[in-house]
Amino acid sequence: MTFEPQSLTLPDPLPLDGGGMLADARIAYETYGELAPDRSNAILLCHALTGDQYVASTHPLTGKPGWWERMVGPGLPIDTDRYHVICANVIGSCLGSSGPASIAPDGAPYAMRFPVITIRDMVRGLVGLLDALGIERLHAVVGGSMGGMQALSLAANWPERAQRVLVIASTSRHSAQNIAFHELGRQAIMADPNWRQGEYYGSDTPDNGLAVARMAAHITYLSEDGLTAKFGRNLQDRPEKSFGFDADFQVESYLRYQGSGFTRRFDANSYLYITRAMDYFDLAEEHGGSLAQAFAGNPARFCLVSFDSDWLYPTAESRHIVHALNAAGAPVSFVELSAPFGHDSFLLDVPALDRVVKGFVE
Amino acid sequence: MTFEPQSLTLPDPLPLDGGGMLADARIAYETYGELAPDRSNAILLCHALTGDQYVASTHPLTGKPGWWERMVGPGLPIDTDRYHVICANVIGSCLGSSGPASIAPDGAPYAMRFPVITIRDMVRGLVGLLDALGIERLHAVVGGSMGGMQALSLAANWPERAQRVLVIASTSRHSAQNIAFHELGRQAIMADPNWRQGEYYGSDTPDNGLAVARMAAHITYLSEDGLTAKFGRNLQDRPEKSFGFDADFQVESYLRYQGSGFTRRFDANSYLYITRAMDYFDLAEEHGGSLAQAFAGNPARFCLVSFDSDWLYPTAESRHIVHALNAAGAPVSFVELSAPFGHDSFLLDVPALDRVVKGFVE
Repeated sequence: MTFEPQSLTLPDPLPLDGGGMLADARIAYETYGELAPDRSNAILLCHALTGDQYVASTHPLTGKPGWWERMVGPGLPIDTDRYHVICANVIGSCLGSSGPASIAPDGAPYAMRFPVITIRDMVRGLVGLLDALGIERLHAVVGGSMGGMQALSLAANWPERAQRVLVIASTSRHSAQNIAFHELGRQAIMADPNWRQGEYYGSDTPDNGLAVARMAAHITYLSEDGLTAKFGRNLQDRPEKSFGFDADFQVESYLRYQGSGFTRRFDANSYLYITRAMDYFDLAEEHGGSLAQAFAGNPARFCLVSFDSDWLYPTAESRHIVHALNAAGAPVSFVELSAPFGHDSFLLDVPALDRVVKGFVE
Repeated sequence: MTFEPQSLTLPDPLPLDGGGMLADARIAYETYGELAPDRSNAILLCHALTGDQYVASTHPLTGKPGWWERMVGPGLPIDTDRYHVICANVIGSCLGSSGPASIAPDGAPYAMRFPVITIRDMVRGLVGLLDALGIERLHAVVGGSMGGMQALSLAANWPERAQRVLVIASTSRHSAQNIAFHELGRQAIMADPNWRQGEYYGSDTPDNGLAVARMAAHITYLSEDGLTAKFGRNLQDRPEKSFGFDADFQVESYLRYQGSGFTRRFDANSYLYITRAMDYFDLAEEHGGSLAQAFAGNPARFCLVSFDSDWLYPTAESRHIVHALNAAGAPVSFVELSAPFGHDSFLLDVPALDRVVKGFVE
C-alpha cells in the first residue's frame, strides 16, 4: 500500500475511552467543494466499517470510484457547488489515518499494540480534524451504518458542533447478533496462521481469514430477497452441478470474489479494531443508561432513515433512536424507505434516499 | 474417535445422483422400542446436518444425552412403548456410516475422494437400511431441518414407503442465502492449513476452520430476539469491557464454546459433504421443475411445522411446500408455531411442538 493521502497530525494527544492517549494521531481526509468565507457550509461525512475518505474520488488502491459518488458532487443531493464536504478516514483504519499498521514511536508497526478504540474515540479524531481546519460548527454531519454511529456520537458528545445530524441505516448499540457476526469474523482472522498475533507486516498477510470475515459480513449487508433476486440458485458458467466443491452457484462465486477483493484494500488488524469499536458501541450506556439523556438539550435537527430490507440494523433500531430524540425534545424526522438491497441500500440506487438527503441537508 | 456403533453394510452398491456407485455402504443406526410382529409400527427419524443416530441415547463421543430425548421415549410424543423408532447416521457423516473419513477399498481414508452426495443419496441409504431390516412401509417418517429434507425426499421418490410424513422447520430447496452461509463455512474449513485438501486423517485436524464454520451456522440457528434475550450485551465474567480482544461479551464466549466443542465430535470433511448435499437440494428441480409434480398421486398424509422466529428456513418455505401438496391433492396439515429460539426451536422446549408431533404420528 504505497500512496500519499492528504493528512494532518493532530497537535494534541487524543484521549481514549480505554484510558491513555494516542499521541501524534494522523487523520487522512479528502474535501470536496469550497469552504465559504464564514466557514458555515461544511458537511462532515462519516464512513462505514470498510469505507474510507474517498467518498467522491477514485480509490487510490483499487482505482474504483468513490463510495458515494452518486450522492456527493456538483448538483447532487450533497451538492459540492454549495457545500464543503469533508470525509476523513477513522482512526483504527488503514487508509492513511493512525491505525494498527501505522509506525509506532519505536519504529515498528503498532500491530496489536495499537490501543483498542471506540466509536467516540474515532469521533474525537474527527473533532480534532475540524478544530485543525478551523470549522467550529458543521452545517451537517451525515453517516450511514458505522458512519451513522459516528454522527450520533458527535451529536451526543459535541452537541454544539453540528446543526443537522443525518443517520442512515444505523443503530445506537450493537445487538448480540451484531456482535456475534463480528466475533465470527475476528475468529476467522485470528485463526489464520499468517495472522501471527497481528505481527504480519512485511510478511504474508492473513488474507484467507480476512476473506472469510468479509464473506460473513457481506451476507449481513444483503437481504435474503435481494440475494434470491440477484442469484437465486443459478449456476456459475456451467450447465449443471459439478458434484464437487468448486463455486457451482453464482452466489458462491460472488462471495469468493468479495472476500478475495477485500484483502487487496484492507488491513486485517484494522478489521479487528474497527469491529471491536462497533461492538463496544452503546450510546445509552455512555450516558447513564438513557439514550434520551444522550440527547438532552441538543440544539441540532435530526433525521433518521432506515430500510425495510435491512436486517443488520433493522428499522426498529432507528425507531428506538427516534423515540429517545422525542423524549429529549429534539426535532427529528424519520423515514423507513422500501428498497430491496438490505443494509447496503444506503450505498445503492435508491432515489428516495437521494430526495431525503437533499431535502434534509438544504 | 473409537467407538463401535451398531451398523450394517448394504448388500447392493448404492447408485448416486452424481453418477457412479458407492459399494459396501455402511449405515450406522440406533433403534428404540419393539418392532411389531407385522412390522407396521416403525418410525424413521431423520437427523439434521450435525446430528446423528443417537436420538434418544447417550452420544458415545460427548457423553451428552440424545438430541431428541424430550420427544422420543416411553410415554413421550414419539412413544417407544408403541413405536419402533429407527434413526440412522446419513452417509457422508462421521458417526459410523460411510463418509469421507471411512476407509476406501485401497486401505486409505476416502477424504475428498468420497463421492459428492445429495439428500436423495442419503435417503437411498436409509431406504437400503429399511430393506435390510425388512420394513416395507413406515408408520411415519419424521425430520427437522435437513431431516425434513430427507423426509420430503423419501416421500417424493419412494412414495409407498411412508404412511405419514412430518417435516419440521425445513425447506424444499436451499436459498441463495442458505448457500451463502454454507459456502462461508466451507471456505473457513478449506482456508485452514491443516485441512490439506482433506488429507488430514492421522494428523492435525482443521479445527480452527471447522470452529469458524460452526460459529457461522450457529448464528443462523438462533433468532435475533433469542440472542438478545439470552445474552444481550452482557459481559462475560467481568465488570467492564477489557479494551482487548478477549471474549468480553457473553455471546462471544458462547460462540467460541460452540465452535470448539463441535470440533471434538465432527469431521471437517463431513461438514463439507453434508453442507454441499443441502445446497444441492431442490426437490422441484428433481421433478421437472414442479414441486407439486414431486408429490403427484402421493398416498401419504403430510404435516408441516414451521417456527415464527426461524429465519434460516422461514415459514414461507413451509407454506411453499404446503401449496405444492395442495396442488398435488395430498392431505396436508400445517402449523406455524410461535417460539423464541429461531431455527433451533425444533430441538428445544416447545410444548406445542410435542402436541403436534404426538397428534400426527398417532
